[in-house]
Amino acid sequence: METTAIETLPDTTTEDYERILSAAETAATSLARTDPSRRAQILRSMADALDANGAELVPLAAADSSLPEARLRGEVSRTTMQLRMFADVVEEGSWLEAIIDTADPDALPAPRPDLRRMLVPTGPAAVFGASNFPFAFGLGGGDTASALAAGCPVVAKAHPAQPRLTAAYARAIDEGLRAGGAPDGTFGVVQGADVGRLLVQDPRITAVGFTGSTSGGRALADLAAGRPYPIPFYGELGSINPVFVTPAAAAERSGKIAGQFLESLLLGAGQFCTKPGILFVPDQSSIEWLVRTAVADDSFRLLHRGIRQSFLDVSREILEHPDVRPVSSPEQSDLDDLSVRPVIGVTDARALHRNSQALIKECFGPFGLIVTYTSVAELHATMAVLPGTLTATVHGTDDDHDAAALLDALARYAGRVIWNGWPTGVAVSWAQHHGGPYPATNSVHTSVGATAIRRFLRPVAYQSVHEAHLPPALVDANPWGIPRRVNGHLS
Amino acid sequence: METTAIETLPDTTTEDYERILSAAETAATSLARTDPSRRAQILRSMADALDANGAELVPLAAADSSLPEARLRGEVSRTTMQLRMFADVVEEGSWLEAIIDTADPDALPAPRPDLRRMLVPTGPAAVFGASNFPFAFGLGGGDTASALAAGCPVVAKAHPAQPRLTAAYARAIDEGLRAGGAPDGTFGVVQGADVGRLLVQDPRITAVGFTGSTSGGRALADLAAGRPYPIPFYGELGSINPVFVTPAAAAERSGKIAGQFLESLLLGAGQFCTKPGILFVPDQSSIEWLVRTAVADDSFRLLHRGIRQSFLDVSREILEHPDVRPVSSPEQSDLDDLSVRPVIGVTDARALHRNSQALIKECFGPFGLIVTYTSVAELHATMAVLPGTLTATVHGTDDDHDAAALLDALARYAGRVIWNGWPTGVAVSWAQHHGGPYPATNSVHTSVGATAIRRFLRPVAYQSVHEAHLPPALVDANPWGIPRRVNGHLS
Repeated sequence: METTAIETLPDTTTEDYERILSAAETAATSLARTDPSRRAQILRSMADALDANGAELVPLAAADSSLPEARLRGEVSRTTMQLRMFADVVEEGSWLEAIIDTADPDALPAPRPDLRRMLVPTGPAAVFGASNFPFAFGLGGGDTASALAAGCPVVAKAHPAQPRLTAAYARAIDEGLRAGGAPDGTFGVVQGADVGRLLVQDPRITAVGFTGSTSGGRALADLAAGRPYPIPFYGELGSINPVFVTPAAAAERSGKIAGQFLESLLLGAGQFCTKPGILFVPDQSSIEWLVRTAVADDSFRLLHRGIRQSFLDVSREILEHPDVRPVSSPEQSDLDDLSVRPVIGVTDARALHRNSQALIKECFGPFGLIVTYTSVAELHATMAVLPGTLTATVHGTDDDHDAAALLDALARYAGRVIWNGWPTGVAVSWAQHHGGPYPATNSVHTSVGATAIRRFLRPVAYQSVHEAHLPPALVDANPWGIPRRVNGHLS
Repeated sequence: METTAIETLPDTTTEDYERILSAAETAATSLARTDPSRRAQILRSMADALDANGAELVPLAAADSSLPEARLRGEVSRTTMQLRMFADVVEEGSWLEAIIDTADPDALPAPRPDLRRMLVPTGPAAVFGASNFPFAFGLGGGDTASALAAGCPVVAKAHPAQPRLTAAYARAIDEGLRAGGAPDGTFGVVQGADVGRLLVQDPRITAVGFTGSTSGGRALADLAAGRPYPIPFYGELGSINPVFVTPAAAAERSGKIAGQFLESLLLGAGQFCTKPGILFVPDQSSIEWLVRTAVADDSFRLLHRGIRQSFLDVSREILEHPDVRPVSSPEQSDLDDLSVRPVIGVTDARALHRNSQALIKECFGPFGLIVTYTSVAELHATMAVLPGTLTATVHGTDDDHDAAALLDALARYAGRVIWNGWPTGVAVSWAQHHGGPYPATNSVHTSVGATAIRRFLRPVAYQSVHEAHLPPALVDANPWGIPRRVNGHLS
């Protein structure tokens, strides 16, 4: 597929790095000053440019990632829909969290001056995109969209697995931003072996959005925390996404559950951070047998060789554990250096509890672990060894006695709790939450949905500042027409 | 003042530590389940108990801190008012950030399931109170109030400078919480040399609130970030609180500004994190001379010997810098081992810029630095070397040409921007923000005001979960009557 016509982004020189970071710093001031309608226009213009360039970009992404073009076209739509949704969110204005307390000379224990608080952008943000969603979690994906919506310029680190896509994607973003009136320096891309570490430690960077592996993410998070001036690191690092099938649900619809489990597990060749990695089933259910029967010997091309090697290593390690039996353990050696066949193991809840370090591991690719349990109490006991997770799912029935307690308990480990559904598929909406206790994320923020903007904002309060010097969001007349709280009341 | 009747809290034994942490973990589940009115009742009951015990507690705090009893009585009022305000905030319910997106089979690029998001408590929180506000930033202060309001049990680390107050304050809090129906383990106190480090690294602790020094806070922040499961560390560490007097303001009211500067500087013997530590004045103004004339030779008793020693060391170091001249450099050696006299130095903006590391330092106690400038451009240049700060103040006139640009620029370095006022005095209200870029805080959250609750909450989304298993905040009927966003619209 590769031809000489495809432009690749060279590693960023020191000179270019300085130019990009310095431009981002300059852009921060003017971007922060854009009013909601202008900022929305910038986001919509970026969306338009990606739509217009989609036909050119999709084949490049496909060549980089082995992902099917149809799926990638859907991903471009998701990316531009996300930008347009953030534009709507920016115009709606609640994200500014504008609060006005007018002066109260009678306040106790002391008179209170006029106080007006709102959120302002933190400044230039660094974004590390993922390889598994070249568009929607890439250079112009959710982290970039939410940082731009917040008014923060973005310096994105290019993913080394996207050599063909990077330059063209970056150019389309840049064209869109410029056409929308974004200041110079609003978006820049850096690339190279050490440039990510440089970026996270750069004093001009004020926050980091990251989607990737726990090991890579944690190394960067430690750098962010160790700076002279620590900055927030918003990492979406890893997730197990356990699924719990109650005895009642297994009795009612084993076949359907087995089929849907495989479908969700194999979506995107199992390369989703929301892949259902562990399926808990009652030990007398036929689900294990049904999965064994239904899993096909199809091969899947993975995103890059590193992921394939890691898939082979981790899946073998788990399958070779003495407490694990194979459900599907196909030959892999006859495949090309990107392809694998699905691997599924089975163990029981007590063994999982005993060997949690060895058996509970995120394994990117078509790998899953089925865990049989003998009582629902065993399930609750198992939760103590589950790491934080983006999602947790319960399959139950309408009058399921076990469901309520499971849902309640799982909300402590998971950012999204799902009933009779599957974790893959993360709608971008107001209520979405894509986060969870570590290592899913840093637990208190989301990387998908309207509230993702909050990560790139910080509050400022103005005390006794007169109208002429207040930001428009805080003047009495409310020229932007945004929702505000005035003297305790929403208006 | 000390008598044998005063109970002191012993260092926490390993056994007691385990009991307290384990009780907090158990309490987390039941406290999380309390509805807003019950949680508000718990907070109000705690406030009532502190009011009822105030007369007993104030003399103990006075003996510990050398702070006047009148000031401490005011602080008790502030503390109980804060609890009652948080009770109102909890009942109002916006803090739950409830968002409902009903299912949309026609959503693009994919059908959307029913998604309902709200905030839930993170779990047990550790609180490290400050010595300078024994009540309002102590065991039952702002961090404890906001964690409890969020539904998080609190394990507070007692401050070693409060040997008399600690046990009695803790007992009053505990009585109030029990009377209000709080579960066992909702509040615990630990004490000892290493127990703080233990606490921050304890896997049962999910977030940390800290008010204190930059060095002590940073050491704990590094431990929090270095855990296998990192947790948020909300530290209020240090602040310079610069005040900028424009040429027009100096021409209009030098005398008033000089007097008010001294008043704010010396409030609480200069032991406020919002003390105006640096005053920028035009070089031809009489403000320096007026301060020199007005500053009295009064001595102040500081909170403890450590603060006095640090005051003497840091103020001497700055005053002995070759670019600094003394405004007030009184004899200190004749005073007792807790007392000091005010020290004020003067330098110019260019020297401050050149020697920022040496001259821009927080110095707890009655120390201030006056900085003369020759042009407003010099002020803007100086900002590049200012660290993050809780507050920044501009004194200007009604038609001041310099004010707008100064206010705008300062909002980048400060959490609260003040016009023609003084930074000391931090009203607890909806709009208050007590935070700012590091080292003021971690920049994205406040430690005072209604929004401080957000620090101890994390989002959870429920997908396709039917009414019977949803938390009350998210069911269609909205039984708590809280503000929510439904399908994008506030209701």
